[in-house]
Amino acid sequence: MTNKAMQRAYEILEGTTNDKITKSFQIFIIILIAVNVLVVIIETEESVLDEYGYLFTPFEVFSIIVFTVEYAGRITVCKLNPKYQHSKYSIIRFLVTPMMLIDLAAILPFFLPFVVTDVRFIRIIRLLRLFRLFKLARYSEPMQTLGDVFKSKAGDLAVAFFILFIVLIFASSLMYHAEHEAQPELFSSIPSSMWWGVITLTTIGYGDVYPVTIAGKIIGAGVAILGIAVYAIPTGIMASAFTEELRKKRDQKNNTCPHCGKDFTHT
Amino acid sequence: MTNKAMQRAYEILEGTTNDKITKSFQIFIIILIAVNVLVVIIETEESVLDEYGYLFTPFEVFSIIVFTVEYAGRITVCKLNPKYQHSKYSIIRFLVTPMMLIDLAAILPFFLPFVVTDVRFIRIIRLLRLFRLFKLARYSEPMQTLGDVFKSKAGDLAVAFFILFIVLIFASSLMYHAEHEAQPELFSSIPSSMWWGVITLTTIGYGDVYPVTIAGKIIGAGVAILGIAVYAIPTGIMASAFTEELRKKRDQKNNTCPHCGKDFTHT
Amino acid sequence: MTNKAMQRAYEILEGTTNDKITKSFQIFIIILIAVNVLVVIIETEESVLDEYGYLFTPFEVFSIIVFTVEYAGRITVCKLNPKYQHSKYSIIRFLVTPMMLIDLAAILPFFLPFVVTDVRFIRIIRLLRLFRLFKLARYSEPMQTLGDVFKSKAGDLAVAFFILFIVLIFASSLMYHAEHEAQPELFSSIPSSMWWGVITLTTIGYGDVYPVTIAGKIIGAGVAILGIAVYAIPTGIMASAFTEELRKKRDQKNNTCPHCGKDFTHT
Amino acid sequence: MTNKAMQRAYEILEGTTNDKITKSFQIFIIILIAVNVLVVIIETEESVLDEYGYLFTPFEVFSIIVFTVEYAGRITVCKLNPKYQHSKYSIIRFLVTPMMLIDLAAILPFFLPFVVTDVRFIRIIRLLRLFRLFKLARYSEPMQTLGDVFKSKAGDLAVAFFILFIVLIFASSLMYHAEHEAQPELFSSIPSSMWWGVITLTTIGYGDVYPVTIAGKIIGAGVAILGIAVYAIPTGIMASAFTEELRKKRDQKNNTCPHCGKDFTHT
Repeated sequence: MTNKAMQRAYEILEGTTNDKITKSFQIFIIILIAVNVLVVIIETEESVLDEYGYLFTPFEVFSIIVFTVEYAGRITVCKLNPKYQHSKYSIIRFLVTPMMLIDLAAILPFFLPFVVTDVRFIRIIRLLRLFRLFKLARYSEPMQTLGDVFKSKAGDLAVAFFILFIVLIFASSLMYHAEHEAQPELFSSIPSSMWWGVITLTTIGYGDVYPVTIAGKIIGAGVAILGIAVYAIPTGIMASAFTEELRKKRDQKNNTCPHCGKDFTHT
Repeated sequence: MTNKAMQRAYEILEGTTNDKITKSFQIFIIILIAVNVLVVIIETEESVLDEYGYLFTPFEVFSIIVFTVEYAGRITVCKLNPKYQHSKYSIIRFLVTPMMLIDLAAILPFFLPFVVTDVRFIRIIRLLRLFRLFKLARYSEPMQTLGDVFKSKAGDLAVAFFILFIVLIFASSLMYHAEHEAQPELFSSIPSSMWWGVITLTTIGYGDVYPVTIAGKIIGAGVAILGIAVYAIPTGIMASAFTEELRKKRDQKNNTCPHCGKDFTHT
Repeated sequence: MTNKAMQRAYEILEGTTNDKITKSFQIFIIILIAVNVLVVIIETEESVLDEYGYLFTPFEVFSIIVFTVEYAGRITVCKLNPKYQHSKYSIIRFLVTPMMLIDLAAILPFFLPFVVTDVRFIRIIRLLRLFRLFKLARYSEPMQTLGDVFKSKAGDLAVAFFILFIVLIFASSLMYHAEHEAQPELFSSIPSSMWWGVITLTTIGYGDVYPVTIAGKIIGAGVAILGIAVYAIPTGIMASAFTEELRKKRDQKNNTCPHCGKDFTHT
Repeated sequence: MTNKAMQRAYEILEGTTNDKITKSFQIFIIILIAVNVLVVIIETEESVLDEYGYLFTPFEVFSIIVFTVEYAGRITVCKLNPKYQHSKYSIIRFLVTPMMLIDLAAILPFFLPFVVTDVRFIRIIRLLRLFRLFKLARYSEPMQTLGDVFKSKAGDLAVAFFILFIVLIFASSLMYHAEHEAQPELFSSIPSSMWWGVITLTTIGYGDVYPVTIAGKIIGAGVAILGIAVYAIPTGIMASAFTEELRKKRDQKNNTCPHCGKDFTHT
């Protein structure tokens, strides 16, 4: 490839320009991902598989070709990216970036069966096709926002989930000792009682497991009432962080000078 | 109609004045809508239908006459509305405004059966009568507030629901693969597993579908705990937006000069 | 009663002073109410009734005597209250204040059976004894805070619950039409479908009623997901209003001059 | 022990210095606690007990030795702590601090069976081993944050839970009277109806108890809808208090002068 062609390919793949071809390429990839995910979902519906099943293999081959070309292309042009120009190992650093690993996971389910032939393994690998969904992250602002929220509040969320986990262990252990004799099948051990704990603390309450003894009901009521408080913590953190993040993004857009288009947030 | 009568009809129908007749007309329409909705609801109760059923047809005819006259009236006087005076197509622009479409949907269920005679179609059309509820939107401040919240936060909510949808697809696909073999009836396909996903992520948890395998329970617990965080996002957006909107409305009322009655918010 | 004795009785009953006798009287009444409520609750437990049942009647008589004397006392001294001194009808205005009606409801269950002898009526009246719980409102800051929150946010909550109600009607009607044929017992009419609606929109999800048809599940999923947003509104209003109210109360206490004890909030 | 050795032991046990040995000791204790809790949990799993059960007794003995030495050590060096140097009773004051009681509870389950021989008592005592989890509180910032939140909002939470309790009593009593006749087993008394009340007000909704009569359903719907508002109060308090506390801690860290390392929050 000439330098010029490579430069152009880099622009299109990384979306650094805003021209028609770049836009079209992005929309094409987004639609291809969406259809792929749709196929993964509806091919499990037997009636669909019976009628349209013959279309799925050619579509899969087509998708794999496109995604493989895209993946190979990104690797080829990565040296044009200033971040990965410095050393000879930079290409490895590029290959293990989250987005490149997702791109790899998107094509792997097709190539692996040629290497591995164990049937059970192949079935799990087919699930990997769902990771194509995350290829969207490159183009989808909402998913980037969610990622930013998780990043900026990682510490707080870790704290909240650690507390939730402590409460879960405590609640499940107490409930195990209260209910084990009355319901040895459902509360067979503390780990199995944790299923009750999670479904109760998250207020889902399927009703497949619940205490029947008086001691168990008293413990359950205590867990439910105090669990309210603990359950509220990650909920509150996420809700406020997300609202804040969205406001920040909006402010950034509004803080652009209407005349010269430059950002004046931090001046 | 003389110009004066039309002007008066316009005032009454659009509520631009505050006199007694306008008020009475509005209250009459509000009550008529409320009673109509009540009838739609209670006529499904067999005991009510048996005893008072003979009253429902005349009441329906009466309501249709009033609503049709109102609808025709609004079309007749619409040219007095400055917004719809400019071109000859403005009447069509007026007819497709949301409120006029609701008004049409409110009378359509009566007239359509004369045209279409398919029984199943008529049954669905009868459901349309429920849309009369939305005629209230013209008069109800709460519904306008809700509408304003949805409009002002449309972008944020779209982001939140998109994320919820991604999480839903992912959770349902994983659960399908974990539970399909153990419960082929309930987790027959990914789309049918999404019923489990929605009922779990919203913490409703009816208990008609839940994982029974260990893998399924671990995935379910993970979805429940992480789902907390995602579920909190639209909740937080709506709650804060609504509180904000109500405060804004109150401030607007308070920011009116008590002497001259003029708004001094933005001066 | 001499004027002085009446003045003293007024002080004690209304808690205008802070002396030992007033405090003791208040604590005595609070304990009496608490024990009364406890009795109403545990006397429904058969084993308790069998063993301690003979104590309940004398305790009830004792309580009634105290509460009746208290009620009569409050009426006697009410003319010392500046708010009820103006006209001769002021005593009636005093009798219909919420707290006096609660006091009346607290003693009525004992006296009414002498007048009415219908057994079913008496059973309902016995329930009235639970209203003694609300006598606590005179002494309990939390209940006053809750009352203040409901008063200050009455408008907002009315709006939120009105919207919830509209959503409920709409969701239940749609679900009725989708599920009536498949489950004629559970979705027998729109009013009976509203039980499903309430239990779903509040995310309780007992699992006694849930959609089984595909149309019903799609509607149910939509209601669940959009219901999140609507359900969040009253939740958010209450949570923020309560936090605000508690802060306000604390600020009021902190805004008292530590030297002269006077409030300097609005100076 | 020489004074110097005691001083060193004090530094290591209380973590007043930041050297390698202190750090290693802390990490060793944290891991030992974590493994202990893990053992308490997984030894209830029969398959694990069968295979690895022979390891649990030596590990328990090892843990007890370490925790006992640690406990004895803390008592020995406590006189070096300025807070407990004043009187001869200060050692008793030290022994009843929450953390020392937790440390005692962590070793008691091992020694008590030598004194008491009642089997049922021993089983409950074994549960005490779970309190070792709280030994983590000495080292875990999240648990300290949660503790601080509970302390700083104790009053507000007490108010919120008191209100929740009043609502619970009222709802359960009403439901008992509505459902007792139709479901005498499930709503056998008001205390037993409170199980329904807790599971409904917390929106868990297992589905083991729910109203079946029309009166019961109407009361249940009312409780569900109004319960939203009450349930939101402790949730809101916890969520905002926790976010606030985390921000406060972060601010404290940020308010340290980067040059001299001193806090300049309140200067």
